[in-house]
Amino acid sequence: MKAWQGRFSEKTDVLMEVFNASIPYDQKLCLEDIEGSVAHIQMLTKIRILSESECDQLLEALVQIKTDFIEGNLSFELSDEDIHMCIERQLTEKLGDLAKKMHTARSRNDQVATDLRLYVKYAIHRIKEELKNVMSTLIKLTEQHGELILPGMTHLQKAQPILLGFHLNAYVHMFKRDIERLDDVLKRTLVLPLGSGALSGTNYETDREFMKEKLGFLEVSGNALDAVSDRDFVIEMNSVLAIVMMHYSRLSEDLIVWNTQAFDFITISDAFSTGSSLMPQKKNPDACELARGKTGRVYGNLMNILTVMKGLSLSYNKDMQEDKEGLFDSVETVEIVSKVYNKMLESITFNVDNMSKATESGFLNATELADYLVSKNIPFRDAHHITGAVVKYCIDQSVGLMGLDLKTYQRYSPLIEMDVYDCLSCEVAIKNKKSYGSTSYLEVKADTKRLGEWLFNSFTDSL
Amino acid sequence: MKAWQGRFSEKTDVLMEVFNASIPYDQKLCLEDIEGSVAHIQMLTKIRILSESECDQLLEALVQIKTDFIEGNLSFELSDEDIHMCIERQLTEKLGDLAKKMHTARSRNDQVATDLRLYVKYAIHRIKEELKNVMSTLIKLTEQHGELILPGMTHLQKAQPILLGFHLNAYVHMFKRDIERLDDVLKRTLVLPLGSGALSGTNYETDREFMKEKLGFLEVSGNALDAVSDRDFVIEMNSVLAIVMMHYSRLSEDLIVWNTQAFDFITISDAFSTGSSLMPQKKNPDACELARGKTGRVYGNLMNILTVMKGLSLSYNKDMQEDKEGLFDSVETVEIVSKVYNKMLESITFNVDNMSKATESGFLNATELADYLVSKNIPFRDAHHITGAVVKYCIDQSVGLMGLDLKTYQRYSPLIEMDVYDCLSCEVAIKNKKSYGSTSYLEVKADTKRLGEWLFNSFTDSL
Amino acid sequence: MKAWQGRFSEKTDVLMEVFNASIPYDQKLCLEDIEGSVAHIQMLTKIRILSESECDQLLEALVQIKTDFIEGNLSFELSDEDIHMCIERQLTEKLGDLAKKMHTARSRNDQVATDLRLYVKYAIHRIKEELKNVMSTLIKLTEQHGELILPGMTHLQKAQPILLGFHLNAYVHMFKRDIERLDDVLKRTLVLPLGSGALSGTNYETDREFMKEKLGFLEVSGNALDAVSDRDFVIEMNSVLAIVMMHYSRLSEDLIVWNTQAFDFITISDAFSTGSSLMPQKKNPDACELARGKTGRVYGNLMNILTVMKGLSLSYNKDMQEDKEGLFDSVETVEIVSKVYNKMLESITFNVDNMSKATESGFLNATELADYLVSKNIPFRDAHHITGAVVKYCIDQSVGLMGLDLKTYQRYSPLIEMDVYDCLSCEVAIKNKKSYGSTSYLEVKADTKRLGEWLFNSFTDSL
Amino acid sequence: MKAWQGRFSEKTDVLMEVFNASIPYDQKLCLEDIEGSVAHIQMLTKIRILSESECDQLLEALVQIKTDFIEGNLSFELSDEDIHMCIERQLTEKLGDLAKKMHTARSRNDQVATDLRLYVKYAIHRIKEELKNVMSTLIKLTEQHGELILPGMTHLQKAQPILLGFHLNAYVHMFKRDIERLDDVLKRTLVLPLGSGALSGTNYETDREFMKEKLGFLEVSGNALDAVSDRDFVIEMNSVLAIVMMHYSRLSEDLIVWNTQAFDFITISDAFSTGSSLMPQKKNPDACELARGKTGRVYGNLMNILTVMKGLSLSYNKDMQEDKEGLFDSVETVEIVSKVYNKMLESITFNVDNMSKATESGFLNATELADYLVSKNIPFRDAHHITGAVVKYCIDQSVGLMGLDLKTYQRYSPLIEMDVYDCLSCEVAIKNKKSYGSTSYLEVKADTKRLGEWLFNSFTDSL
Repeated sequence: MKAWQGRFSEKTDVLMEVFNASIPYDQKLCLEDIEGSVAHIQMLTKIRILSESECDQLLEALVQIKTDFIEGNLSFELSDEDIHMCIERQLTEKLGDLAKKMHTARSRNDQVATDLRLYVKYAIHRIKEELKNVMSTLIKLTEQHGELILPGMTHLQKAQPILLGFHLNAYVHMFKRDIERLDDVLKRTLVLPLGSGALSGTNYETDREFMKEKLGFLEVSGNALDAVSDRDFVIEMNSVLAIVMMHYSRLSEDLIVWNTQAFDFITISDAFSTGSSLMPQKKNPDACELARGKTGRVYGNLMNILTVMKGLSLSYNKDMQEDKEGLFDSVETVEIVSKVYNKMLESITFNVDNMSKATESGFLNATELADYLVSKNIPFRDAHHITGAVVKYCIDQSVGLMGLDLKTYQRYSPLIEMDVYDCLSCEVAIKNKKSYGSTSYLEVKADTKRLGEWLFNSFTDSL
Repeated sequence: MKAWQGRFSEKTDVLMEVFNASIPYDQKLCLEDIEGSVAHIQMLTKIRILSESECDQLLEALVQIKTDFIEGNLSFELSDEDIHMCIERQLTEKLGDLAKKMHTARSRNDQVATDLRLYVKYAIHRIKEELKNVMSTLIKLTEQHGELILPGMTHLQKAQPILLGFHLNAYVHMFKRDIERLDDVLKRTLVLPLGSGALSGTNYETDREFMKEKLGFLEVSGNALDAVSDRDFVIEMNSVLAIVMMHYSRLSEDLIVWNTQAFDFITISDAFSTGSSLMPQKKNPDACELARGKTGRVYGNLMNILTVMKGLSLSYNKDMQEDKEGLFDSVETVEIVSKVYNKMLESITFNVDNMSKATESGFLNATELADYLVSKNIPFRDAHHITGAVVKYCIDQSVGLMGLDLKTYQRYSPLIEMDVYDCLSCEVAIKNKKSYGSTSYLEVKADTKRLGEWLFNSFTDSL
Repeated sequence: MKAWQGRFSEKTDVLMEVFNASIPYDQKLCLEDIEGSVAHIQMLTKIRILSESECDQLLEALVQIKTDFIEGNLSFELSDEDIHMCIERQLTEKLGDLAKKMHTARSRNDQVATDLRLYVKYAIHRIKEELKNVMSTLIKLTEQHGELILPGMTHLQKAQPILLGFHLNAYVHMFKRDIERLDDVLKRTLVLPLGSGALSGTNYETDREFMKEKLGFLEVSGNALDAVSDRDFVIEMNSVLAIVMMHYSRLSEDLIVWNTQAFDFITISDAFSTGSSLMPQKKNPDACELARGKTGRVYGNLMNILTVMKGLSLSYNKDMQEDKEGLFDSVETVEIVSKVYNKMLESITFNVDNMSKATESGFLNATELADYLVSKNIPFRDAHHITGAVVKYCIDQSVGLMGLDLKTYQRYSPLIEMDVYDCLSCEVAIKNKKSYGSTSYLEVKADTKRLGEWLFNSFTDSL
Repeated sequence: MKAWQGRFSEKTDVLMEVFNASIPYDQKLCLEDIEGSVAHIQMLTKIRILSESECDQLLEALVQIKTDFIEGNLSFELSDEDIHMCIERQLTEKLGDLAKKMHTARSRNDQVATDLRLYVKYAIHRIKEELKNVMSTLIKLTEQHGELILPGMTHLQKAQPILLGFHLNAYVHMFKRDIERLDDVLKRTLVLPLGSGALSGTNYETDREFMKEKLGFLEVSGNALDAVSDRDFVIEMNSVLAIVMMHYSRLSEDLIVWNTQAFDFITISDAFSTGSSLMPQKKNPDACELARGKTGRVYGNLMNILTVMKGLSLSYNKDMQEDKEGLFDSVETVEIVSKVYNKMLESITFNVDNMSKATESGFLNATELADYLVSKNIPFRDAHHITGAVVKYCIDQSVGLMGLDLKTYQRYSPLIEMDVYDCLSCEVAIKNKKSYGSTSYLEVKADTKRLGEWLFNSFTDSL
């Protein structure tokens, strides 16, 4: 069914029909489209363009279509062009001419923009819940294993000893920021374009505030031309999801490295690993690798929509039909990755002995030695230089800082005394940390508490 | 000056020195680095790691370095590696060992993260002002020429008549959203990493809240590992600037099209046009084209930083040194484009007659005819079909809707009467618009007023 | 069916199974996978790992599976994980243990790399044919309408008169380069990884040359580790397709602009246009807009695979499973866009009068005037300046260069004589062009001939 | 100096001048611009537009300008707009009106396209040499240490034992493909646009073949409109460089992982490492990390130019001025990374003992056991399953395959006999590899020889 064939003398080419149709993917907007139509119908009734009885018939028919969709009984045909026409066709089959009246005071331009905003609204809600679940799991892991000590790394080189909970909390902070970003996108998504018509508004004294309330939006768009041309919210959503995936890619990299036989800090359960068809011993961290790899598609989807919108004259152009598939793909990717991570994280075993052994080498306590020297009133840069020289000596002698005798220490600085050994254990190094947000037992506990409370409030809010 | 050579036996290779140095570009962070150091020194003094007199000497020397920088007298050497070491070298030349004490309780990892956040803070401030200036100019244009009627387009095809102010306001809305997005980035940028040390915090009971206040941040980072690893704010900034440039690319496209000899809606002043070295008659809208073209670099910078951060294990990795150049470039691009647009927009002449003439063809009043039929109780889809057929007839006869006689109209629908002609002028079409946010004279005025008030408040806030 | 469960004690989590499975999209490689297996089986038979009778049974069963696939009767199950296991399962159902022997001396790592290279090989073949069809159509248009004169533009401003065939040929050159690039990708695609095993080769004296010949490859990979890790050909293919789409986006932009009511150079047939559900008069160039918009997804797919491969340690990583969907999507996009363009271009009507009228204004002959002055021995830069001044005068007087009297001309240069008028018509301007590759009638004819011959040879080669 | 001010009444705005000027970066094209002008002048002389004496004066003056540039004495002024006008200004200062004649029969549109193609030509030459140097160094490393055995990995998990030379050769193959791709770009770069004029050719019977020969191009462009609009070669170059950087990012990741304290396969010399200003023991693989990070900018530059060119109507648009900076940046990035890698690779120490020790665990010989079972006529999939079960048992017992007694083996398959132990050492596993391109000593030697010969011929060709 074409909604626009009056002035056309030739039929649409079959190839063009295939090329032009969005129904293969915009059928995902079926429920959103119905929700928008319901609000529109109720508004039309309120302003007396539709009678109460017309309204009832339309809403009843839409409920049927909705049920058909949910039960998988709605038929989509390529000739429907898009989900809006598909639903109108179904309505017309049921109600005849009345169905056509539903389109009064709106156009597909404002209709599809509304559908897509509803989609993003629900997607944000779902993804926030998924991210909160992952945060919750990470916090649970911290509560269970958070006081394990492992080598904190910069440049993938051992740097300073840190608590496992400190490392995991870093990711909790990342996902927390992701949720805050999603909330910011939501603000700008919940601006209602419905009622903007094709581009210039409509001739009807519509009650757009009413529709805004019905649909749970925050604001009514103030300029119809902008309302039908604007896909900022799609780009924003894609951007935020790109950052979410960047975070997952970093977490994945950490887990993949920890899971190597050389590090062996963790064991990922069989349930989230796969093997090799050729090498019988293999057990691969496929879930982590796939998550890392899927970062590519979400970045790509962002580049897609940015390219689409570049240099488009106002207002609506058909190019903008390309706003959906990438968005759907990024949303679905983040959802499945989150679900998988949530379960996979729960299944990880931390190999305590290996972590602990790894803290014994690599001079993780070198900063402590430098700080010890500072406490003896040596300027920091000099303390750093002395420690560097001591470390170089130790490497040559294959010995750790704990294993060096006092006499040797004193060759490097006469200010070093027996109490130097007190500051060289990793536990002491951790305890010595005093700054807010540091890896000390107290600070990690405090940060975990803050994060837990934020999460609790957040879960409560979303009820 | 290398800050870390204690454990090294070989000198850095000269090639490596060139490759590794960030001083050629991070010298742009000089003022931010000094500002951070001042706050750090004051904090160290407050917690008695530095004496009042040491503090005074350090601050005085930093003021001198700042003056040198502003006056272009600061010498940057490749061997300085980065701006932090460069400033420390200058300090050491002035104060000797005291300079080295400034580095107590911080690392370059938290220092550079702080500098970059300060940079983004100031960049956001500057860009907001630039965008507000452009908004202000657009609103001025609307106040002067806003009631001109031109063909509103979808698919670059004439769709419905709209007011020029309606079109310009659409861009004002875009830039308003950009500013709101910048404010959101700012919230997350003003989280202070200073005091996080290299990755795990420091052994000093630093007063990070004090530094936060001094530097005008909103929050102190809660996890040191995250604080030194986090570049989300850089990505966010790049994303928002990509959207800003997308908006400029659309505005540019509109102006370039309007400026063609075929459309001839506007004349861009000579001051913002250029000619051809070969074709003497040429006057090209270079400013618009360049702005549209520069969208590419800002998109590219976003892809750059996303790629850099993908799959990086925690915490700091040297890859992250690549966070700066793209950011600086995007910020500077948006600044210059905004400045140019602000002046260029002011210089545009609107060719009233051409706009007006353009509204006479292209059946911009077809929707009005359809709405007229609906007012005669014809269902919208049928009204649409009838109008389509009328339009097809008119095209074949090379006549407009105004030029068709009543008899002919009545061949298409007997319900059409003499009053049909009342609804077919563009002015009437515009007046007929009744919905909130539409292109009617009243609605455009109301929207302009809302935007103007928002802008006024926004300017006031930023004083 | 899992090929690797020997060492696993836990079952794969259902969620992981969904996440991990590539069968929903790699089923597109079914025919390629069978083709690769056939060559592998024949090779195994040649080196007597399989008997002739085993070979016959396997090949026969594969033929059946192939038929099932083509007829849509092959069942894909999520638990199959991927197309390779799916086919092996089907084989096992038919042949029992014998099916398992087929996997001797190969791994899924070299198998999937081979499949994907076969896919690219066939895709290149198909896309080349499509592009040649479009080239052929463009050349046909040139043969029919190539001598129409229209304003050639730079900066979307009228620059110099050109022939329509000259403009269309520019696109023929672009697509010709695209085909050459595809041929270059093909060279590097036809390097056979099969026989590389999982990463290090196999313990069998396989005859890889034999398989190379069977599969129509050009070379056997020289290093197994590289062979299973290499996706350069996927990136190259995505890059070349991105350039193809860039070309289509430019052609689309040209057509969209020419199709505006202001330009009105072309009419796109109803069969490739669509209307508006709200505005009865609308006829939109949707095919062009969609093609332009789809540039975004192809750019995005390129960014996707580049991101996936960034920083992956050797050799195969599961991230690389993400190499397929984007590739398939870009290939299919270029195919459908090419098909649509081919038919749509044929349906375009050129509006001769409008093109011709457009050449009368805009001082397209200004360069001719400057050249005339040069022929009177005035240095070019001066001639340019004089002409500029004349044009400025004409604009102020609303007159064209043809309409200016000789006296006025002579005010600008006494060297101007009556013969000036001979050089100012567009036809003369076109004829005056003498350089190779210029827009003169002769040169356009010559270039069209060269392109036609190249195309003829190219079609012949591909038979 | 503006080349086009005849028809302008207003002066260019200062801000516009800054915005519009490309001289800050296109001064890098100075030598290419002079080279192009020399060929153009010689051609103009050949066709008698310039006299021999004019030619001599112009060439002499250009030699002077070239010398000034090389010695850093050429003054660039913002008002020059671009390098072409800058050189013309210098020429005019020296020669007066004669300088202006040089511009006969060309435009800045074909001139800048020619300059940029010359730039890419030289850049390809330089980068090929750099890549060949890196290949040469890798081959030298293979000749010295190639027979060391280390664990080959898939999924960063130990997979099968391989030779170090086998691993290094994989990268040699990658860089070899990069060079072949650069050669392909070169073919399409060496198509001469000079003589195309602004867009439509020129009125002069220029000898473009002559200029082609002079400038070392392969072909003369056949269509002027395409010639000035085409930036495919820039995109191609950016694409190829993106793949080069992807290869460096993978090599970097390998080296960073091998350089961790957990793996400890290599030691990077102090000369290519840096330390930490806070942690005295740190020695970081900064060169590798920076190279990996710089992948981002080269990807970003590709996305930049793709975005710029998207949807540009023919022919030249000012947007295309944005083609240069990204290209220059990618070229320079690949050059410096190559130089650094070449020297850094030479400085690497391979830690033989650690590599060797790493091959003892992780069941690298499991595939050998499976192959052993196959040799006893067990179907591969069953052999795989049996081996998996054995490995699981070994993990539970903390024993390797070598450490299991025959009786236990026979519990899993009665066909296993004493000779099983012969196939379980890594040396034997390597020797057992028989397929072409495998990791066996012989095959690695053969591949190294092939690569060495290719490289030798390649070096010889470029002399």
